[in-house]
Amino acid sequence: MDLQSIVFNFSEGDGKNKQLLGGKGANLCEMTQLGLNVPPGFVITTEACIAYLENPDKGLNMELMNQVRNQISVIEQQTGKVFGGADNPLLLSVRSGSALSMPGMMDTILNLGLNSVTLSGLIQKTNNPRFVFDAYRRFIQLFGHVALGIDDELFDQHFSKIKGDAGLASDVAMDASHLQKISQSFLDVVEKQTGRSFPDDPYEQLELAIKAVFGSWNGKRAIAYRREFNITPQMANGTAVNVCSMVYGNMGNDSATGVGFTRDPGTGENVMYGEYLLNAQGEDVVAGIRTPKPIAEMEREMPDSYQQLVTLRNKLEAHFIDVQDYEYTIEKGILFCLQTRNGKMNATARIRTAVEMVAEGLISKSEALLRVDPDLLEQLLHPALAPNHNFTSIVTGLPASPGAASGKAIFDADRAEAIGKTGERVILVRVETKPEDIHGFFASQGILTSRGGKTSHAAVVARGMGKPCVAGAEGIEVNVKNREATIGATTIREGDLITIDGSTGNVYIGEIPTVEPEFSENLKVLLGWADAVAKLKVLANADTPAAAKKAREYGAQGIGLCRTERMFNDVDRLPIVVDMILADTLNDREQILNRLLPIQRSDFFEIFKVMSPLPVTIRLLDPPLHEFLPNEQEILEDLAQLTGVQKNIQGMDTLVANLMYLDSSKVHTTLPEPFNTFNSDLVAQMIAKKQNMLNKVRQLYEVNPMQGHRGVRLGITHPEIYGMQIQAILEATAQCQKEGIPIEPEIMVPQVVTTKEVQVIKALTQDIASKLEQELGLKLSYKFGTMMESVRGILCAEPIAEMVDFFSFGTNDLTQAVFSFSREDAENKFLPNYVNKNILENNPFEVLDVTGVARLMKIAIADGRKAKPDLKVGICGEHGGHPASIATCHAMGLTYCSCSGPRVPVARLAVAQSKLRADAI
Amino acid sequence: MDLQSIVFNFSEGDGKNKQLLGGKGANLCEMTQLGLNVPPGFVITTEACIAYLENPDKGLNMELMNQVRNQISVIEQQTGKVFGGADNPLLLSVRSGSALSMPGMMDTILNLGLNSVTLSGLIQKTNNPRFVFDAYRRFIQLFGHVALGIDDELFDQHFSKIKGDAGLASDVAMDASHLQKISQSFLDVVEKQTGRSFPDDPYEQLELAIKAVFGSWNGKRAIAYRREFNITPQMANGTAVNVCSMVYGNMGNDSATGVGFTRDPGTGENVMYGEYLLNAQGEDVVAGIRTPKPIAEMEREMPDSYQQLVTLRNKLEAHFIDVQDYEYTIEKGILFCLQTRNGKMNATARIRTAVEMVAEGLISKSEALLRVDPDLLEQLLHPALAPNHNFTSIVTGLPASPGAASGKAIFDADRAEAIGKTGERVILVRVETKPEDIHGFFASQGILTSRGGKTSHAAVVARGMGKPCVAGAEGIEVNVKNREATIGATTIREGDLITIDGSTGNVYIGEIPTVEPEFSENLKVLLGWADAVAKLKVLANADTPAAAKKAREYGAQGIGLCRTERMFNDVDRLPIVVDMILADTLNDREQILNRLLPIQRSDFFEIFKVMSPLPVTIRLLDPPLHEFLPNEQEILEDLAQLTGVQKNIQGMDTLVANLMYLDSSKVHTTLPEPFNTFNSDLVAQMIAKKQNMLNKVRQLYEVNPMQGHRGVRLGITHPEIYGMQIQAILEATAQCQKEGIPIEPEIMVPQVVTTKEVQVIKALTQDIASKLEQELGLKLSYKFGTMMESVRGILCAEPIAEMVDFFSFGTNDLTQAVFSFSREDAENKFLPNYVNKNILENNPFEVLDVTGVARLMKIAIADGRKAKPDLKVGICGEHGGHPASIATCHAMGLTYCSCSGPRVPVARLAVAQSKLRADAI
Repeated sequence: MDLQSIVFNFSEGDGKNKQLLGGKGANLCEMTQLGLNVPPGFVITTEACIAYLENPDKGLNMELMNQVRNQISVIEQQTGKVFGGADNPLLLSVRSGSALSMPGMMDTILNLGLNSVTLSGLIQKTNNPRFVFDAYRRFIQLFGHVALGIDDELFDQHFSKIKGDAGLASDVAMDASHLQKISQSFLDVVEKQTGRSFPDDPYEQLELAIKAVFGSWNGKRAIAYRREFNITPQMANGTAVNVCSMVYGNMGNDSATGVGFTRDPGTGENVMYGEYLLNAQGEDVVAGIRTPKPIAEMEREMPDSYQQLVTLRNKLEAHFIDVQDYEYTIEKGILFCLQTRNGKMNATARIRTAVEMVAEGLISKSEALLRVDPDLLEQLLHPALAPNHNFTSIVTGLPASPGAASGKAIFDADRAEAIGKTGERVILVRVETKPEDIHGFFASQGILTSRGGKTSHAAVVARGMGKPCVAGAEGIEVNVKNREATIGATTIREGDLITIDGSTGNVYIGEIPTVEPEFSENLKVLLGWADAVAKLKVLANADTPAAAKKAREYGAQGIGLCRTERMFNDVDRLPIVVDMILADTLNDREQILNRLLPIQRSDFFEIFKVMSPLPVTIRLLDPPLHEFLPNEQEILEDLAQLTGVQKNIQGMDTLVANLMYLDSSKVHTTLPEPFNTFNSDLVAQMIAKKQNMLNKVRQLYEVNPMQGHRGVRLGITHPEIYGMQIQAILEATAQCQKEGIPIEPEIMVPQVVTTKEVQVIKALTQDIASKLEQELGLKLSYKFGTMMESVRGILCAEPIAEMVDFFSFGTNDLTQAVFSFSREDAENKFLPNYVNKNILENNPFEVLDVTGVARLMKIAIADGRKAKPDLKVGICGEHGGHPASIATCHAMGLTYCSCSGPRVPVARLAVAQSKLRADAI
Repeated sequence: MDLQSIVFNFSEGDGKNKQLLGGKGANLCEMTQLGLNVPPGFVITTEACIAYLENPDKGLNMELMNQVRNQISVIEQQTGKVFGGADNPLLLSVRSGSALSMPGMMDTILNLGLNSVTLSGLIQKTNNPRFVFDAYRRFIQLFGHVALGIDDELFDQHFSKIKGDAGLASDVAMDASHLQKISQSFLDVVEKQTGRSFPDDPYEQLELAIKAVFGSWNGKRAIAYRREFNITPQMANGTAVNVCSMVYGNMGNDSATGVGFTRDPGTGENVMYGEYLLNAQGEDVVAGIRTPKPIAEMEREMPDSYQQLVTLRNKLEAHFIDVQDYEYTIEKGILFCLQTRNGKMNATARIRTAVEMVAEGLISKSEALLRVDPDLLEQLLHPALAPNHNFTSIVTGLPASPGAASGKAIFDADRAEAIGKTGERVILVRVETKPEDIHGFFASQGILTSRGGKTSHAAVVARGMGKPCVAGAEGIEVNVKNREATIGATTIREGDLITIDGSTGNVYIGEIPTVEPEFSENLKVLLGWADAVAKLKVLANADTPAAAKKAREYGAQGIGLCRTERMFNDVDRLPIVVDMILADTLNDREQILNRLLPIQRSDFFEIFKVMSPLPVTIRLLDPPLHEFLPNEQEILEDLAQLTGVQKNIQGMDTLVANLMYLDSSKVHTTLPEPFNTFNSDLVAQMIAKKQNMLNKVRQLYEVNPMQGHRGVRLGITHPEIYGMQIQAILEATAQCQKEGIPIEPEIMVPQVVTTKEVQVIKALTQDIASKLEQELGLKLSYKFGTMMESVRGILCAEPIAEMVDFFSFGTNDLTQAVFSFSREDAENKFLPNYVNKNILENNPFEVLDVTGVARLMKIAIADGRKAKPDLKVGICGEHGGHPASIATCHAMGLTYCSCSGPRVPVARLAVAQSKLRADAI
């Protein structure tokens, strides 16, 4: 590290270098150098942080403190105040700020520099002892907590006691003497807890504060946040420290503090947006302790300051050319800007601003496309309340993060996490939230608070996560200790179902059905631009006509994966499928398959019609047959029950017997009508059938079913099953061709590991096709291809490509094979541990693995296109809807990616971004 | 196909071109051209066979029959006989013969050309109507069976009836009139079965015979044989047809027929070897219908013919420079050689001849090494009877194929196959065997026949398979229909245990313990040559000091895989391991691991001592923890039992309770002594422990355990377990170093998929090592490496190689990953079907897959050696002991292969052959 460059004055630091100065520090420099009114200050670099954290026991670097002292002198000159001075004391704020915004994750200390000397100096200067003691007691608590590690609770107890003893209801009612008393008792707390008196030397205070801020980079909260959002050291490494002279929004009614967005972050509308608190410190806004006023009121209440704010807002957006989220303080009528950053917005707002900024000539279409995080689009697809529901809301709060959610009301983060992990849907209900509640956010469907505004912690974090949030619902009394909340006469107890609507702020008792929202016009415009740019096509995975219809609405350019087993599992088909599996002879099995044939044909016909003229890729049966049978335990229980019935059937009346039958029918026994013929013969038949089923289940048992008798292996050993499916596909194709419906059917073979498998199934397909063509006197048009989801299949890509029209990478199974991980087991057992310990950067089932899986995919693509240069190559694993994975696919030259319907808009944007980013290199 | 070259006279055919002329045909040409006395004849090519089989309905090619007719004319000129002629008729033998010997798998027809006309001509000429009618009835039956498809049984019934009616005991007692009657009844059988009279036209006979021989290439037996021995079309494609003028060994006491080996195929001794039958046809010898005399008797009985035979034998071996297996007939004092081929010998003989031929200056050491099929060596490692057993043999037959075996006596091939498949050990007991019994051979441990010599079908096939065989045990009466055999007063019934010793010919009632044989001096010499040639080292997989000792005896140059879990499974350790798994806290688990530490240390120390100074590669724990726990069902049963005990414990006396305890102890419960303290508290404790175990088993349950929480994943999540093992290895290493025992310990990490895993375990190892080094004041010497058994591990080979000393390919798991096959499931479900249908050429778990697995291995080797040019690379999967796979490993430049102890000699020879063959290219 170059010792010259540890500390930068705001007037000197490079506003573009967020890695070195942190986002906040860089922006403070940028704003200062732009001529905006920023309180004088300086930044200590992230490099200094990392150097310190390598060996915290060594303390701060000497040179660092020298440079800090120099900078303090500069501030003293700029402000005319003296750090630790008796007359006109300089107080400082010490704030963290890393390259990436991690709101609330790291520490801040305000009013640093207060001690017995500066205290009286400040009282003299301001002539406002109440203000000074208020600042003092805040400082002692904050410093005590952050720098000295003292539990907040210990301070709060004293505060409440003194307030109570004085018979006061609100903080505002306290006078200087109360606050002085509180300050003294806080000093006592510190002495008692630390064994020494509160540090009085301002430089000692500063040094401890810098260390605390540095240390908070490795705090539990910060680490959890970085893990959740996959923030790597390449993205942000260490926190800078911003030291800045204090300004006060609580100097009277010509003072205020507030936060603002340059546009409305909820809707994206190009208006002044924000909130402020008169006569208050900034922390009051952020912590949600008092409910702030909308910015519109300021125009009336403080017209001059409001004009300064409008100017600030316009300058900020004009300079940064992106929506800014800024903080400010008005001290005695003078506006200071304390911070700015690119605004976090929900999807709707992000899209609207992007589209409108293009219209306003501020940015290009490409820039607009790159501005929207594709994952954000999923927010738009979050369910909203069914419009026709007739529930009445019991209370309304602020609509702090859009979307609706239902779940069990849970009153603390730990329990929310515990219960959420069991798979229960949870709504976290709190008075207000703090950064330490973050794990509760992850585990919940939505967040409800009784205090705080749209920029409170709860609101900001929920919006970041795309989870619904209703904030500041003041009609609710939340009692965390009793685990209940009351709204007038109504009580919500832990576990009661509630519903929140983060788009309206409404809260309901009970569970309300939800519906999917429509695409906004702005989104349509943006995705239209995306489609025009994109090289990769986006297809959808869909198994039914309904899902296919939905996929088209999402903008899918075809179906990349239609899973036929989902059709087998339908209630009206499963009994036939079970009979087919139980059949003793090939002939019996073929008879039963003939019953499935018309059903499958009609499935395919309907899907083809919906998708016409787009491609529909149908995967032949994939799962092992035993997946269609009940499990051994169930059959054994049924058998025991039936044997009981058999014993008792004499003397039972028909009704009871019928009831038994109805009960047993749940395990897919088909029995002749009418029910009243039920008799002991029938029971014997049922027992025989169950016994048969039991034998079959045992015979089909597999130790590792994921790698067992499935996919094309079934097609090879049971060509009659694949034959029926192919017949159904081609008959549906023929029907479309006869009716003049243009379609593009594709038959896809799963789990291929040898060239010969493809050859055999292709021959089977051609046989069926040519018979059908002869029969119907037409020429069938279809494509034939394989999944690429085994390593060996990939290593046979060249000879396989000679026989097929397309490959489709099944990256779920391929990832399992490459890692020798069984996904089901890995994600429940060791994989979280692997990601936590950084053995793996990501869960490879979520993010396409570049080292292993993508390297093999590249081999397959190269080998395959060697044999057939125009080979169509797609991906239909879950990665096909994941933006980073899509970028990898784009780089590899895939033809299309296919993902679940609701991921289609995400993927459409991601493919466009992949193209733009790749072209920019 | 070039029409010019369909048929070759023996005097013209290319004796080197076995692909075209078949082995037998090529050798007949070779012998004819050498001047040996071969009956005149010609060969129809294998290409003609394949052309015919493409469309058998079209019949034989016209040009083919033209050329055949020309060749018949040539034979007529050479012999002065006329095909179909009335005076001096020419009769023919029509025999199959493909490029690879498939003894008895395809068809032969003798005496072709006999009909009403030639019959009387032959009688006139030979003046021996008995001989002629005997030949006639044999011809009708053979032709009827082979060319017309008539069941042999139908002929045999008539034969027995006429023989019985005449009151005759033996075939020899029948005179010409009996045989004429039999011939007539056989003609009637043919007419009745085929609806037309027996074909009288000799050319029609010949055409039908050629078609039948061609067709037998695709017969069930031949297909099964080729599948069993992995004979691909590249190795042999179609059968040639050898048409040859008949000579007769049954023309009186100056005639004989026999088979010989140029050296003793049982011992390899350089002596005349063979058997003959006076006045008999060749088929009598091969079919084992009469028991032949040893060749030594011929010197006395037919001294002149014997001299001719000695000359033949010497010429054959001098020309072919390999042991020959030849057939001959002596017709009225003149020796004809009918066939020769390289002799199939057992391992002992093969090795002795190879070594002795080097001494005799006939072949080079390299040639000797290449002559011995490595797989044959396993025969030498077949168990022999324990020398001190005190069983008395109940009967002695011919020692037809060495080795000893016990099993249940089963009297037909189908039942042997059925019972053998259940895992039972089976001895196939027959009067004599025929090619259609081949599936019974595969399923049996050994073969016992009551008839036939050392060159009978049973003997030849068993030797080929390396299975023990006792042949011609005439003291046994085998009654297949009643499924029993009697030896005097003793009866063996189906399922009775018997033991046979194929090295002595002894047969025993009951099961006799067996021992492993010592290496012969010849084998030591041969393997010494192999070691001198080899590039790849051969190491062994061994888990115990005893197995390590054995491995050294087998010539292993170290241990390539020592599996620590086998140590965990020992009776004295398993309870500790179970306690360790059940431990609730890390601290508890560490305590328990401390109990395992000294045990593991002593394991390693003992193995190091045995192997000093060779390398010992120890694999850290690999299987998932749940493998050490009982299964859920067992625990539930125990719990039910214990709950019962708990209910009834009042009133039970201590004895009964103790019995309950003893019973439940089988499921690894450790309980305090003494037993008589057993009481209800103890039961409650046991229930709690079982419940705990049940919870743990459920918690550890995995859907696909093969790809679950195992190998290094355990090492990452439970560093305390790997830590204990590493500690034990290094402490044992230190102990050896202190005692001056030179050793080369290697620590190996299984299941690696990321670079980071290796890094973490390496750091753990270095930590433990440096602490130990400090403690003991010495420098530890050990190597550190990884298994390469996951695809992703392979794709990280370069960065991993930077951190390790060696890679060891675990090709069992790697094959599973590459194919996405679970071996356990695949081999029981679809894999046999895959090999039968030729979807895969081989079971990839037996033969290393070149397309997939080896391609990845090449990537790993190249990438690994890029990072570390001297990286040691081995293989420790089962393929490491498989000759073809070893050749693949040699080609890839591996450093060593490691295999199970008994495969070490096989591997030593295979590595030498790999080197020689690779150098020859």
